[in-house]
Amino acid sequence: MPEDAEGYCRVIAVDCADKPRFGRAVRLFDAAQAEACVDHHVTNPHYAEVNLVVSDAAATAEIVYELYGMFGVAIDKRSAICLYTGIVTDTGNLSYSNTTPNALRIIADFIEKKLVDVSEVNRLIYRTVPYTKTRVQGFVTSRIRLEDEGRIGIGVLTRAQMLSFDATNEDCEGIVDCVRDIDSVKIAIFIREGADGSFKVSLRSKDIGDVCRIANKFGGGGHERAAGYTAWLPLSTVVASATEAAIAELKRDEKHDSSPDTH
Amino acid sequence: MPEDAEGYCRVIAVDCADKPRFGRAVRLFDAAQAEACVDHHVTNPHYAEVNLVVSDAAATAEIVYELYGMFGVAIDKRSAICLYTGIVTDTGNLSYSNTTPNALRIIADFIEKKLVDVSEVNRLIYRTVPYTKTRVQGFVTSRIRLEDEGRIGIGVLTRAQMLSFDATNEDCEGIVDCVRDIDSVKIAIFIREGADGSFKVSLRSKDIGDVCRIANKFGGGGHERAAGYTAWLPLSTVVASATEAAIAELKRDEKHDSSPDTH
Repeated sequence: MPEDAEGYCRVIAVDCADKPRFGRAVRLFDAAQAEACVDHHVTNPHYAEVNLVVSDAAATAEIVYELYGMFGVAIDKRSAICLYTGIVTDTGNLSYSNTTPNALRIIADFIEKKLVDVSEVNRLIYRTVPYTKTRVQGFVTSRIRLEDEGRIGIGVLTRAQMLSFDATNEDCEGIVDCVRDIDSVKIAIFIREGADGSFKVSLRSKDIGDVCRIANKFGGGGHERAAGYTAWLPLSTVVASATEAAIAELKRDEKHDSSPDTH
Repeated sequence: MPEDAEGYCRVIAVDCADKPRFGRAVRLFDAAQAEACVDHHVTNPHYAEVNLVVSDAAATAEIVYELYGMFGVAIDKRSAICLYTGIVTDTGNLSYSNTTPNALRIIADFIEKKLVDVSEVNRLIYRTVPYTKTRVQGFVTSRIRLEDEGRIGIGVLTRAQMLSFDATNEDCEGIVDCVRDIDSVKIAIFIREGADGSFKVSLRSKDIGDVCRIANKFGGGGHERAAGYTAWLPLSTVVASATEAAIAELKRDEKHDSSPDTH
């Protein structure tokens, strides 16, 4: 929140699913005389006075684009770049199932009107990686182990290894997705030792295996396809228990699939 | 070329910039009574009797899509998946500068008509990586060295290292792009030892540095942003000469930029 943001009487929350996400800015919101919210998260509880929540929009940027039109405001290059960024980062670069025809047509218009150089902006968003991140990610992925006939992939990074690369937690983001992307892998596990000696376990699944069930078992949470938990046990125990739980989850899911009449 | 492909009297070459690319299929083409070519490569010399070359199409698939419409043929799911694949693979997943508004609108239509599950097809194209490829890529990227204040990135893979991962040449594709994607890197170099003891040098550049000039110096070729050559020298010599040439090229480009009046 900018320091000079105090004292505004009208506040609009954008792309914020709930008030707890506001952080310090909640003061601003609560002090406002009029408040509105523009969002696309289906879980949004309509916490503002005026709520524009369109849950089938690919990104909140798609809704904001429509507002430009409704208010007759022309879209300049700077706005178009921001809207393009909002759309591609929320749709996995126009590849996730939430990609709407409308979002694609908005970007088509931006290109046609020469408002966005998609090649340049895309390179800055997706293909600009810190050296440290490249190296630490390479280190872990070169040592991924497979279990359960390749259906489970496990990557591990200890604190000492992390420090040897001078890597931050941020540099380790995305590693679990590299594990998941291996063709044979159904459930991906990435275990990273935290500064406090605990182990952060990140889980991903593809078409089968509910990793949230695994995370719940160890006191964590998340979604069916992406979940996680923290473990305070020796590394070998964390690896073994996570692998075992993943094998059990794949077995359960198969059983589930092959006997649809029993539930 | 399929074995039963002989004896056709009409042949259409699709997405083939020139006849030398036909391989064995050239016999088929030359024996045909009528031949046509559908392509989007600007270099296409119009080698067929009938040539439909649209060089501003993002992909030949974009032209084929228009043909469906011209001939009044409905696009079924299978065709749509092929056309989608053709478009996204030729545009770096809708991120390169050749991405046309028309291509984006075609995909918007496919989604609207429920012809393509972009999430599923995209995952199969871009996020399905062999275990060996993941590991060998990780090995090289974890050991990338930077030179010239980070502006040059160098990855190396010897034959022995490659064999230790059971990796094929195909598994090594894309590694040079990981080197290029490092934020500080202007010229990326990836050196891989071939089965014959030679070294294959792949080069990439971003906004500055013409890597084709470097490749030419060593008897290779390519484009300004992507080029390569083969060297029959000891590895240390190959690394040193490539690095030196890259440093010189960046210097040349800077000089070039800062004194526009001298040429």
